[in-house]
Amino acid sequence: MATMAGGENKMWGGRFSAGPDAIMEEINASIGFDRKLYAQDIAGSRAHAAMLHKQGILSADDHVAIDQGLVTILGEIEADTFVFSRALEDIHMNIESRLRELIGPAAGRLHTARSRNDQVALDFRLWVRDQCDAIAAQIETLIKTFLTRAEEHADTVMPGFTHLQTAQPVTFGHHCLAYVEMLARDHSRLKDARERMNENPLGAAALAGTGFDIDRHATSTALGFREPTRNSLDTVADRDFALEFLACASICATHLSRLAEEIVIWSTPQFNFVRLSDKFSTGSSIMPQKKNPDAAELVRAKVARINGSLVSLLTVMKGLPLTYSKDMQEDKEVVFDAAETLELALAAMNGMIADMTINKDAMRAAAGSGFSTATDLADWLVREAGMPFRDAHHITGSAVAMAEKQGCDLAELSLEDMQSIDAAITNDVFNVLTVDASVASRTSFGGTAPENVRKQIVYWKERLG
Amino acid sequence: MATMAGGENKMWGGRFSAGPDAIMEEINASIGFDRKLYAQDIAGSRAHAAMLHKQGILSADDHVAIDQGLVTILGEIEADTFVFSRALEDIHMNIESRLRELIGPAAGRLHTARSRNDQVALDFRLWVRDQCDAIAAQIETLIKTFLTRAEEHADTVMPGFTHLQTAQPVTFGHHCLAYVEMLARDHSRLKDARERMNENPLGAAALAGTGFDIDRHATSTALGFREPTRNSLDTVADRDFALEFLACASICATHLSRLAEEIVIWSTPQFNFVRLSDKFSTGSSIMPQKKNPDAAELVRAKVARINGSLVSLLTVMKGLPLTYSKDMQEDKEVVFDAAETLELALAAMNGMIADMTINKDAMRAAAGSGFSTATDLADWLVREAGMPFRDAHHITGSAVAMAEKQGCDLAELSLEDMQSIDAAITNDVFNVLTVDASVASRTSFGGTAPENVRKQIVYWKERLG
Amino acid sequence: MATMAGGENKMWGGRFSAGPDAIMEEINASIGFDRKLYAQDIAGSRAHAAMLHKQGILSADDHVAIDQGLVTILGEIEADTFVFSRALEDIHMNIESRLRELIGPAAGRLHTARSRNDQVALDFRLWVRDQCDAIAAQIETLIKTFLTRAEEHADTVMPGFTHLQTAQPVTFGHHCLAYVEMLARDHSRLKDARERMNENPLGAAALAGTGFDIDRHATSTALGFREPTRNSLDTVADRDFALEFLACASICATHLSRLAEEIVIWSTPQFNFVRLSDKFSTGSSIMPQKKNPDAAELVRAKVARINGSLVSLLTVMKGLPLTYSKDMQEDKEVVFDAAETLELALAAMNGMIADMTINKDAMRAAAGSGFSTATDLADWLVREAGMPFRDAHHITGSAVAMAEKQGCDLAELSLEDMQSIDAAITNDVFNVLTVDASVASRTSFGGTAPENVRKQIVYWKERLG
Amino acid sequence: MATMAGGENKMWGGRFSAGPDAIMEEINASIGFDRKLYAQDIAGSRAHAAMLHKQGILSADDHVAIDQGLVTILGEIEADTFVFSRALEDIHMNIESRLRELIGPAAGRLHTARSRNDQVALDFRLWVRDQCDAIAAQIETLIKTFLTRAEEHADTVMPGFTHLQTAQPVTFGHHCLAYVEMLARDHSRLKDARERMNENPLGAAALAGTGFDIDRHATSTALGFREPTRNSLDTVADRDFALEFLACASICATHLSRLAEEIVIWSTPQFNFVRLSDKFSTGSSIMPQKKNPDAAELVRAKVARINGSLVSLLTVMKGLPLTYSKDMQEDKEVVFDAAETLELALAAMNGMIADMTINKDAMRAAAGSGFSTATDLADWLVREAGMPFRDAHHITGSAVAMAEKQGCDLAELSLEDMQSIDAAITNDVFNVLTVDASVASRTSFGGTAPENVRKQIVYWKERLG
Repeated sequence: MATMAGGENKMWGGRFSAGPDAIMEEINASIGFDRKLYAQDIAGSRAHAAMLHKQGILSADDHVAIDQGLVTILGEIEADTFVFSRALEDIHMNIESRLRELIGPAAGRLHTARSRNDQVALDFRLWVRDQCDAIAAQIETLIKTFLTRAEEHADTVMPGFTHLQTAQPVTFGHHCLAYVEMLARDHSRLKDARERMNENPLGAAALAGTGFDIDRHATSTALGFREPTRNSLDTVADRDFALEFLACASICATHLSRLAEEIVIWSTPQFNFVRLSDKFSTGSSIMPQKKNPDAAELVRAKVARINGSLVSLLTVMKGLPLTYSKDMQEDKEVVFDAAETLELALAAMNGMIADMTINKDAMRAAAGSGFSTATDLADWLVREAGMPFRDAHHITGSAVAMAEKQGCDLAELSLEDMQSIDAAITNDVFNVLTVDASVASRTSFGGTAPENVRKQIVYWKERLG
Repeated sequence: MATMAGGENKMWGGRFSAGPDAIMEEINASIGFDRKLYAQDIAGSRAHAAMLHKQGILSADDHVAIDQGLVTILGEIEADTFVFSRALEDIHMNIESRLRELIGPAAGRLHTARSRNDQVALDFRLWVRDQCDAIAAQIETLIKTFLTRAEEHADTVMPGFTHLQTAQPVTFGHHCLAYVEMLARDHSRLKDARERMNENPLGAAALAGTGFDIDRHATSTALGFREPTRNSLDTVADRDFALEFLACASICATHLSRLAEEIVIWSTPQFNFVRLSDKFSTGSSIMPQKKNPDAAELVRAKVARINGSLVSLLTVMKGLPLTYSKDMQEDKEVVFDAAETLELALAAMNGMIADMTINKDAMRAAAGSGFSTATDLADWLVREAGMPFRDAHHITGSAVAMAEKQGCDLAELSLEDMQSIDAAITNDVFNVLTVDASVASRTSFGGTAPENVRKQIVYWKERLG
Repeated sequence: MATMAGGENKMWGGRFSAGPDAIMEEINASIGFDRKLYAQDIAGSRAHAAMLHKQGILSADDHVAIDQGLVTILGEIEADTFVFSRALEDIHMNIESRLRELIGPAAGRLHTARSRNDQVALDFRLWVRDQCDAIAAQIETLIKTFLTRAEEHADTVMPGFTHLQTAQPVTFGHHCLAYVEMLARDHSRLKDARERMNENPLGAAALAGTGFDIDRHATSTALGFREPTRNSLDTVADRDFALEFLACASICATHLSRLAEEIVIWSTPQFNFVRLSDKFSTGSSIMPQKKNPDAAELVRAKVARINGSLVSLLTVMKGLPLTYSKDMQEDKEVVFDAAETLELALAAMNGMIADMTINKDAMRAAAGSGFSTATDLADWLVREAGMPFRDAHHITGSAVAMAEKQGCDLAELSLEDMQSIDAAITNDVFNVLTVDASVASRTSFGGTAPENVRKQIVYWKERLG
Repeated sequence: MATMAGGENKMWGGRFSAGPDAIMEEINASIGFDRKLYAQDIAGSRAHAAMLHKQGILSADDHVAIDQGLVTILGEIEADTFVFSRALEDIHMNIESRLRELIGPAAGRLHTARSRNDQVALDFRLWVRDQCDAIAAQIETLIKTFLTRAEEHADTVMPGFTHLQTAQPVTFGHHCLAYVEMLARDHSRLKDARERMNENPLGAAALAGTGFDIDRHATSTALGFREPTRNSLDTVADRDFALEFLACASICATHLSRLAEEIVIWSTPQFNFVRLSDKFSTGSSIMPQKKNPDAAELVRAKVARINGSLVSLLTVMKGLPLTYSKDMQEDKEVVFDAAETLELALAAMNGMIADMTINKDAMRAAAGSGFSTATDLADWLVREAGMPFRDAHHITGSAVAMAEKQGCDLAELSLEDMQSIDAAITNDVFNVLTVDASVASRTSFGGTAPENVRKQIVYWKERLG
């Protein structure tokens, strides 16, 4: 009978005369990265063995031996005493081979009604599912951090930008809540992805299902799946769950990159809106005065890496005939890397936001410059002088041009100057030309008025529970 | 008062002394592509005007004039009599300018409490939402086509492939249902995306909300949105809905590319499993004998285009500070192109699948070659001889090697030969070595047995309603 | 004999019973975009016909008829009187069909020893080669514009940034020359790509070459190619020239995006370093005071589109078996779009740079703030006090901290304060702490000293010729 | 004076009060990957120190101490006794810190007139330059392997495919040479990239050059660079060399993916054209009969990974203002991974091609089926019957239809049948309808005739030298 040891430890040793050479081992072996799936692999095997026993396919003794052996292996891996072998290619074979060492030939019964095709689909899906949960939790943490900052700064006036030009005054609290919205969509997207992937691949076997009387609903329950997958060919050919996870990660990282860009720009001496804590910035080896927003720049760059991973897996899957092709072994490293990258970026961003010093004075000064209340003038003309908006807009443009020429702000124009542009203007107009008046006036649902910001914070706190 | 005509037709004409030159017009104008949003733009304006009137911001007369003007313009565009002007830059300005021609200065009141920032966010979101519905409907059509083919071929045996090598026999019906699963996930993903994007941007105004007493819940209801967006900054800065749509499209197109690859391979004389109808193949200008699977090849390539669009928009959005930046004008062409590409690919694939001739004989012959029932032998050894699977696997390998040496199939080995490999083998083993027996035995949930295929067809028909 | 008219106008009409239906025409026809290749197609056909005649394969009469017919068609297309037909699929068939109308059956002799496979490879390669030249010329223009601005601003001090933080003073002229370097690499890259692609595909025929006694060197000379391609299979399967062109375009567009980002940031009121001319900026429909750097933002976004095109074609070509597959029809639109996008971005950037107002005062003020001459202090300590650089760096850090605490600049610290940090410091140190002294001192090759900048301008002018 | 030890080992320790916490260290430290640059870093430092000494900036004693210290460190790293510290962030600081341990404060003099910005630009550029050479050498090896196989199979007839349908007979030798062309372009592209990047960044210092009297031409010579870079800002901001390397790698990997796809398809029992050696294929854990072309599938997938890396770095660089931003730290891992991936793919492909068994009989049989000589018939009609090609094409189509109906090949049609289609056909036609005659007739330059193939092999051998 075949043994697992030495030169014969290839599972398919019976048929191949020549051993794979070094290049092949290098390109073929996945143990270098798929060892990350050890916990999932063992959990899946334990559920499978329990089900085989319940169905009468595995004896009680074999079940006990297998289960205890797997628990032992789990302990060994977590204690870092397990010896991984690249010749055994992947995590599945490494564990199975060790199981055979521990419990003897009964180990060979574990693979009844199972194949590496459904096994790897299971392990990887469980891992991705866990990441959805872990990242969703991190997103919640970051949302809470933003809510805390929004609460502190519900009244803090800052310039609202379009095209990175001052457009209208808004509040920093409102700006924080914009990121809460983005992050909440990320959270919701991950939740949907998790629900969609939460079907059990185990039991699809190689690709056709099996003739053994297995109970896939039992393993589904044991492993927390909603139900078993419905088509064995699709099950071993499918990596949608990984693609969708990567797409969610790319969109979330895009949000973080936008925030990171803002932090980089706001940290310049020219803007001086925020100051990262020393924990999240560094100095220069040649320029001792520098305080660089390194963590923000790195977060900005991380989206590139995650997008690259998404492109990579989409490209791998393009045009692959059913069912499993070895190309699909390239699915793991990109997903592992994207998940870890996103987790790191979320943690770093949470730290930066929590620690960041807000320079309210600089924000307020910037909010008040650049004729930021011009729209308020236009709106006043519409409301009070009954002018069509487009005309009011045109007149406001003339007022801005006049103020620019005089080197003053809109509120500093004289009433006569104002009236020289349009006779309908009265002294009352000056009430709407301050940044505080402007901000307080934007009470439409979703608008930047401090009272709105406070209501939204309440809304989010309730929603987060 | 400002007129819209001639050299002054820029909305911000009051401030700029020099007109944009030809290059600027070329790079800046979006009317070449955003005219596609005309219906959404007009629907949004009508809802906005109705709400302004209801809230007492717009008089009844102005409302009637605006509404009728907009209806007129809609008719003009649909009758192809509307004259688009590139100098007016975009669809919003083209329509507003025409409205002013039709109804005079009252047109200028339509833009009260609104900006191009929330207007374009609305128009584009409505368009993407429509595409989600349109593509979901196409996906349902293709699912139904697959169900029809699966029903015809619930018993049609074909090789199940891994690594494009024959692995185990399966049925063509089961193969069709694998694509039903993929498409159903695509459908579900689009539905989730649609639900997530179904919030009304209108009323975010430029970026800060507005001081006018607008009713965003009213426009939400009028335009079929679940609710208004909650943060005005996020609203004008957000293109998640477009990114998520593109991600859904890429995954769906990936599925189609896999099917297309199979059709290309199966159409070779070597495989000869299927024959595309003349409608979906073409000839060669120099090689009269060729019948090329052009439509399948084109579908296979289309995923590349959609992935390119996804990369493009992710790259546009990377690192953009809030709120609106002009970069975001690059959001539309890629989404338009991706939506049209996917719709075309789905239509072509539906036509190909519906018309395709299945060569059952070639499929069956291929299914029976290559020792495809070797797993059945291994399973028999486990079940009947009580052997651990790994040992059974090893013994089966020896049987395959022997058959290969003899140039025969497994079922053609003599009982003596079999027993020379393992004494436990009995005559009974030959019952499991035919493709029909193999396929019929795979009755585990999701397995390829014809009875399972029929049950799944019933399941899908019920689910589709 | 077959006619080209009506229902039979398919070139392969003899074999197919059913006509392609609407979907197939939609997905299959390329005339909507490949008509752009008309001039290349006609030039290639004329060269082919002349060669066939010279080789005795085509009679003088037929050659004259074909050549004149092609000239006529060229005129028709350029006069916009040519009627394109989508049923004729592509530019090749549209022209050939019209030629048959004009000169009768002799038109059919043009396709001797040629196939659409080598014909399209030729047409497209000629088009891409032309774009290499056109874009290289545009790049030269932009380089010259930068040299002009560099000359004006060889002494204009500005902050040199790392991490968008002021690092050391540099000159704006030096900054301009940094872009000259990038653009010169782009130019060189395009030149290399052009040289590599400059091999003649014509004569590869369908894929195997031909038995007709053709002279591929003659058509190479006629069409400006260095030599004919050496392998017919590769010739019809290859799209490297398009991929390499796209890669060059992506890198060039990346450079432009960096410059665009700088313009966006420098145009903020906070930086106020530059002011775009009115030609390249726009206003806001709701905020009359805004002057938005739209052209710069659009250029920044264009790189995304070109990167998307590169991803798209790389993805199309992935895993395509030799030789021609219909997937490759997806090569053109992305390349056309990328070329036009890059040309537009270069033109817009050239306009912006040429017209841009430089705010020297703001640049100088920023250059002097933020302890930008700290490195000069450290270098002084190394040079004059013989200190290891790392120690000098540390001491400088203490000086910066002291100045920051006192709210003053380094040059404003008293000598005593300086000496309290390190006793070796003398009054002489204050000579290196001004921005002008700092900039003037950087005379190492490639350094920012104005004298270097002027030498580099001379270098570039000579190199441009 | 500051020490490097313990809690103070941050180079900028003087200014920051709080130490970076764990997250920051995790996101900021690059030593985990940039240690790969140790040899380049040490070579650069040695060249820098030698130049500083030659210029009188560094004393002879200090130079000797530094140089010997660096040699010691090189030895430690290569002997794997060097202790890397993540707190020291990167390879530069790890080496400098160790140097200080070894030789004391003089270590601090090495950083005179240098910054980490030019140092990392140098190290990375040297590494990428080395990879260009290494990969070019591998490409030459693979070209030679193809030439060997082409020589063996100059006469081996196989089907030439378009659309994966048999088009015309070609030779396997010719097919091999198609890949030689692709690989030769890859080689040429890498050579151009190497030449373009071969400029010395050292001496750009932080970003502005330096006031020390350094000799950048000397370090250029010492490090094998053509010349120093001309602009210090560009030098520290530039990663073109990495982008261009990735683009070259993507195109090369695309070629390998096409070959890999062919191997996968040709290895199916249906095609049976080639058989991978056991070294490059594997078996199945559940299906003992399987022999899977794993190595080919993995090579096919690797292009995805490299494309992802290209996308990633393009995305990182998009819109980065000059000069160095921390985002650029994300340049290394993707380039390292792409280089190693491509090297592995080239090695695996070289092994597969060298070992692969060619099934000449299956190739010949496939080449002769499917009316593959139809073009030869059409060409005969043009040549011998003076027919316009298009008419000959149409007639050939009818002959194919007739043969298809009779279930025979073209050469098996009777002369009468032939003449019933066109009276001009004579018995002579049957001489051109065999695959050998067809192949031998394609003698146009670049055509598939065996004599051409042999000439091309001679050409390539001479070119390779």
